[in-house]
Amino acid sequence: MSNVTTENKNRVKRRPDRGHYDTATIYQIIDESMLCHIGFVQDGQPFVIPALHARKDDQLLVHGASASRLLKHIQEGNAVSVSITIIDGIVLAKTVFNQSVNYRSVVVFGKGRLIEDEDEKIQALEHLTERLMPGVWEAARKPSTTELKATSIVSISIESASAKILSGSPKDDLEDQGLPAWAGVLPIRQVIGAPIGADYTDNSTPIPDYVTNYILKKNQ
Amino acid sequence: MSNVTTENKNRVKRRPDRGHYDTATIYQIIDESMLCHIGFVQDGQPFVIPALHARKDDQLLVHGASASRLLKHIQEGNAVSVSITIIDGIVLAKTVFNQSVNYRSVVVFGKGRLIEDEDEKIQALEHLTERLMPGVWEAARKPSTTELKATSIVSISIESASAKILSGSPKDDLEDQGLPAWAGVLPIRQVIGAPIGADYTDNSTPIPDYVTNYILKKNQ
Repeated sequence: MSNVTTENKNRVKRRPDRGHYDTATIYQIIDESMLCHIGFVQDGQPFVIPALHARKDDQLLVHGASASRLLKHIQEGNAVSVSITIIDGIVLAKTVFNQSVNYRSVVVFGKGRLIEDEDEKIQALEHLTERLMPGVWEAARKPSTTELKATSIVSISIESASAKILSGSPKDDLEDQGLPAWAGVLPIRQVIGAPIGADYTDNSTPIPDYVTNYILKKNQ
Repeated sequence: MSNVTTENKNRVKRRPDRGHYDTATIYQIIDESMLCHIGFVQDGQPFVIPALHARKDDQLLVHGASASRLLKHIQEGNAVSVSITIIDGIVLAKTVFNQSVNYRSVVVFGKGRLIEDEDEKIQALEHLTERLMPGVWEAARKPSTTELKATSIVSISIESASAKILSGSPKDDLEDQGLPAWAGVLPIRQVIGAPIGADYTDNSTPIPDYVTNYILKKNQ
């Protein structure tokens, strides 16, 4: 992919063995997680805010939980850094030094742009909504003009990105592998619990197939 | 708590109803998550890196996954911002506008300090190790002098902090509550899977009680 480069600022310097740069790997991590953390600078102060994201080609669409500060920043044309991290397991080694976690993380550098065109905004909102729950865009009432005005969506171009992955067994040195302690991995994953209907959801409304399918897919 | 203040930069401006400032709430979120995202600025460029953390009183101990860049920054006395976010559920509303997630997040502002004193460093490492898995500090081989030198731990003083929480049912307006779509919440939680022994763990080594207890507690 032409616009995911590995600039100097984005090289995995400390542990080059953990660096992964191919687009498929990077996009898979971005797409698996719904949560990202966006870093930016205002008046020399670093800020990190959590946000929900959806990737559309080489753009990250972001619907911020505390969008206003970010939006002001974005509109000024400043750089942002986006970090996405998935913890896959607790790695227990026979040595304190090698305790760790298995993880997959991506760092993206880019510049954001507030989506102002109404058609583009509706498409972006559909993409974000379908990322949260496939099928819900059709099922739910579409946004009114007022609601659309109250919604802000930012598109961040993925100018450079890199991934870091740690997986597999603990990494004790050979001379420690005979120690008596137990070593291994405790896998961690997210699961979806039983749906809880809103108090205003009629009890006769069945849980829709798109919800059931989502849960089955996530929990398989 | 005297040193968790609500400075202007840390007010929840956009949705003041979601702001929570009491120490117990803030600390509970910090302690529940093992993962944080640390933001800092170098040469005007924002960086966000994921790290494992453990709170010790009003200090965040951090054992970075890509510590070197952060450490250099910390040693120069610069400010950092730390964000910790837990997603508790997918909130499905009857209107596109009100699709959301339930979450608990904390933002901390502070300054970091590299722990250089050896005794303090060992205590901090014990604290971080026990945060990852209670009991493993005693079970695993303690760090050698060489390993200790290769380990860097940063202590970030929690100078100001705030929490944002969204919980409960979807928030559709009254006039939308009769729409036919299903509305409700899909709870999300992390679970621990069956332990996978390292290939160098003798099959006759039982899974230790501290591991079993951890899994039972997390999965209850």
